[in-house]
Amino acid sequence: MTAVLSHHAYGKSRVRLTKVTRQADRYDLKELTIDIQLEGDFAAAYTHGDNSRIIATDSMKNSVYVLARAHPLTDPESFGQHLADFFLTNYPQVASAQVKLVEQSWRRITVAGREHPHAFLGGGAEERTCIVTATRRGQRIASGLDNLLILKTTDSAFRGFLRDRYTTLPDADDRIFATILTADWQYRGTAANWNGCYQLIRQTLLEVFAGHHSLSVQQTLHAMGAAALEACAAIEEITLTMPNQHRLLVNLQPFGLDNPNAIFVPTEEPFGLITGTLRRG
Amino acid sequence: MTAVLSHHAYGKSRVRLTKVTRQADRYDLKELTIDIQLEGDFAAAYTHGDNSRIIATDSMKNSVYVLARAHPLTDPESFGQHLADFFLTNYPQVASAQVKLVEQSWRRITVAGREHPHAFLGGGAEERTCIVTATRRGQRIASGLDNLLILKTTDSAFRGFLRDRYTTLPDADDRIFATILTADWQYRGTAANWNGCYQLIRQTLLEVFAGHHSLSVQQTLHAMGAAALEACAAIEEITLTMPNQHRLLVNLQPFGLDNPNAIFVPTEEPFGLITGTLRRG
Amino acid sequence: MTAVLSHHAYGKSRVRLTKVTRQADRYDLKELTIDIQLEGDFAAAYTHGDNSRIIATDSMKNSVYVLARAHPLTDPESFGQHLADFFLTNYPQVASAQVKLVEQSWRRITVAGREHPHAFLGGGAEERTCIVTATRRGQRIASGLDNLLILKTTDSAFRGFLRDRYTTLPDADDRIFATILTADWQYRGTAANWNGCYQLIRQTLLEVFAGHHSLSVQQTLHAMGAAALEACAAIEEITLTMPNQHRLLVNLQPFGLDNPNAIFVPTEEPFGLITGTLRRG
Amino acid sequence: MTAVLSHHAYGKSRVRLTKVTRQADRYDLKELTIDIQLEGDFAAAYTHGDNSRIIATDSMKNSVYVLARAHPLTDPESFGQHLADFFLTNYPQVASAQVKLVEQSWRRITVAGREHPHAFLGGGAEERTCIVTATRRGQRIASGLDNLLILKTTDSAFRGFLRDRYTTLPDADDRIFATILTADWQYRGTAANWNGCYQLIRQTLLEVFAGHHSLSVQQTLHAMGAAALEACAAIEEITLTMPNQHRLLVNLQPFGLDNPNAIFVPTEEPFGLITGTLRRG
Repeated sequence: MTAVLSHHAYGKSRVRLTKVTRQADRYDLKELTIDIQLEGDFAAAYTHGDNSRIIATDSMKNSVYVLARAHPLTDPESFGQHLADFFLTNYPQVASAQVKLVEQSWRRITVAGREHPHAFLGGGAEERTCIVTATRRGQRIASGLDNLLILKTTDSAFRGFLRDRYTTLPDADDRIFATILTADWQYRGTAANWNGCYQLIRQTLLEVFAGHHSLSVQQTLHAMGAAALEACAAIEEITLTMPNQHRLLVNLQPFGLDNPNAIFVPTEEPFGLITGTLRRG
Repeated sequence: MTAVLSHHAYGKSRVRLTKVTRQADRYDLKELTIDIQLEGDFAAAYTHGDNSRIIATDSMKNSVYVLARAHPLTDPESFGQHLADFFLTNYPQVASAQVKLVEQSWRRITVAGREHPHAFLGGGAEERTCIVTATRRGQRIASGLDNLLILKTTDSAFRGFLRDRYTTLPDADDRIFATILTADWQYRGTAANWNGCYQLIRQTLLEVFAGHHSLSVQQTLHAMGAAALEACAAIEEITLTMPNQHRLLVNLQPFGLDNPNAIFVPTEEPFGLITGTLRRG
Repeated sequence: MTAVLSHHAYGKSRVRLTKVTRQADRYDLKELTIDIQLEGDFAAAYTHGDNSRIIATDSMKNSVYVLARAHPLTDPESFGQHLADFFLTNYPQVASAQVKLVEQSWRRITVAGREHPHAFLGGGAEERTCIVTATRRGQRIASGLDNLLILKTTDSAFRGFLRDRYTTLPDADDRIFATILTADWQYRGTAANWNGCYQLIRQTLLEVFAGHHSLSVQQTLHAMGAAALEACAAIEEITLTMPNQHRLLVNLQPFGLDNPNAIFVPTEEPFGLITGTLRRG
Repeated sequence: MTAVLSHHAYGKSRVRLTKVTRQADRYDLKELTIDIQLEGDFAAAYTHGDNSRIIATDSMKNSVYVLARAHPLTDPESFGQHLADFFLTNYPQVASAQVKLVEQSWRRITVAGREHPHAFLGGGAEERTCIVTATRRGQRIASGLDNLLILKTTDSAFRGFLRDRYTTLPDADDRIFATILTADWQYRGTAANWNGCYQLIRQTLLEVFAGHHSLSVQQTLHAMGAAALEACAAIEEITLTMPNQHRLLVNLQPFGLDNPNAIFVPTEEPFGLITGTLRRG
């Protein structure tokens, strides 16, 4: 028997970076966590312990800090492009470089109604994400957001679904709809107004979620994705993933009380998981 | 040998509760996670398997939902007081009841510049906390906040500390100061403007953190605590805990670059942990 | 603009199940966490809020418990196959069903040198995994293990890698090699000695890891994967993922001490991440 | 108003340490995570930014590595004592030093029925713990274990508890009893057979848990604690904490099936939390 190495990749994960930029009247702050994965002519390391073409993952980490020193870091997309280019340009053995970037958000602390020039408050669990995948034929840029916890207290139903002997869930005309949204969109090209698109898509997703008269998570997901494609001409595709963070109505009848959609138990597991990808038609 | 049961307590932890209140023009939303611990005349269950005085922890959970149905939940403090009273009043075997409440924050989604009446955005990791400890002699109310991530990019030094053969840390005139603040304050009495005090203390802590010319984490902690006592006459004591979320300056000299407080690595561990309690003098 | 729904799937995640089976002389215990994802003719729910073909994710959860009642659960693979078949057989609108199963391991507590008939000890973070993917054309079975923390204190080097201006890592002739192994293998067919294969592959991976004179993580990964293919004829492919859980040698020179591979700092991030897939040649 | 600093402490947390010791025929491996907290004459740092008596937490970390270089690390207790002594002896401003140590367990990989000399398998979530608290008057040693997941499938009842209008839980004659045990015991003096006591107490707790005919978590906790005191004369007190990791019987009646203690759902929250301290009478 011969074992064939049919796929291989390696890189550095969770390279964390804080960049502080001193402006005339304030400091700017950016925090990113970066994962790099390279594919290419590295098989000899696997098969023969020949490390001569191996770029140490420690050197990849160094490269991130060196490149960040000169780069303005105004958005994760352009820094990801710069990093991916770096590996392709400097190392002929690299066939493809994937750079994932997660931006932790910070807001300025407000003092006496004004934003403070150098003090910040963590922005919570929500993250802005980006994946740059580059080969010698070109780059693809996917961006998104993750861990965006949203909830609506009404305008959400779920009824008329299939009933058989495995069904115990009653129809619901009015339920809480809570999810932890992940959105990933694919840009058409390699240049765009990255920050503008991000803000526009994020706000569109929030507004459609808020305003939609939901007949199911699936339907709201579709409406949100379609609106994002409509709002931002620079993207060609968007995938939304919506775990259903169930809030279960508590049965208060044993205690002689009604419960007109007032008291719920949030549950972590199990959860429904709904996903869909929309493309420009 | 005889083993003596010198202390015992039991209760229900992580009782999660969502309450939706329909107002004329909007819905209000509250989410709490509640831990209950009771002490009292329960030794026979431990020593003889006699459960006759045991309130099942499942019944404690039920009580939370029953009481929440009628309670307005405008603040965690008054609901905690109500719950602690309930156990002391209903069950003579209970000598003390401790109720911990953690409130997850939600903000309204903004659509076209206006707050949406029923759609919400998760408020992040920051939590509002409260512990009500009640006996038949009275109640004590401690409130606080947890997981408040704050960072300042300048106005923080650490120099002139003890140097000996175990010291390698250089003096720093200007460093990043980042922490995940926990604050716990003790109220003087059992009635106060709970929401007003919370907002006032939180804002005071943020403003002092932002404005302080810090010579050490210890010094900033002291200034923040003193200002909180000054700001809110209803509290008698405050404890602040400040883990030092180190951002380490990256050494770029091997790459022929300087690093004038621009590029840092955030690290999770190890971390300095500084705590202090301030009382009214 | 028309948005086209190019992909969609949904299901229930983290359905947790404990099954206790009473034997003549002992109790057997199995714990699984199950994720179900269905694809098929569900587009009308997304586009028109038509739920008539939607199997509620709550009903999927019910099905897991109903099917587990009769199934012996001797291995996750056969229960996964049974579940996937169930959805394809019962619901014509389902085109494909993916069932992921994670088994939490339990060991019997040993009392006086003998395994106890009904008391168990949690088996730690290591998990046995399985993914059954079924369509109307057939099934594919992938199995594996996850979170297997392994470490060797010697017989691991990393030298001769590419050096350029971004390289600061020194060559290492003898370093700690620690990783959290994930292994996923694809079976050739839909029937095998599931438990026997699992044990054999797991033990082979451990033995090769222990005995290999490692010139790189890549090389040891290759040796482990090749040995697994050699050991178990029932599998056609194996993917190993090995995050490098760095143990960094502490520099004790500032304190006048040497450090002959004795004192290390374990670090969580950043980490090298090495992956490779081997197929039968 | 004057704010008075009524309590203060600081130190370094999560100092992680791997020590490899080369023996003639094998390598030994120890991994510890250490938290240090000092109290003493540090108020001037808080009140006046005077750091002259402050031992940098970075220096504390250095001290751990320097001391570990010479110490055999055969048990966490003696290394904790050594560290606590170090701070009291070297720094007159230190009034008390608390050192918490958590040991991650490793087992040797078995190859061909024999333990491998230098390859190890992670021991799972269970941790051995120790807290040394030292002042100039002496030391106190508390040791324990944490995260020990144990479950029994029978020999556990819970009935005859208080019933009132808040009670919906039925009596159970035979239920699953699962918990994540935390045990903390206080030694009588400052010298003992640390490893022997640890193994003896751990095994005693496991055996009593396995063999006890449980009428409640409280009763089993008491039996386990009493047996530990009985087994090990070196300890004067033991505290056990037992969160009730509920396995809820699934109602299969809607599907026309019985469920004779066969199919359960494990739940994470809410959970009962039972604690008790036993002292030598």
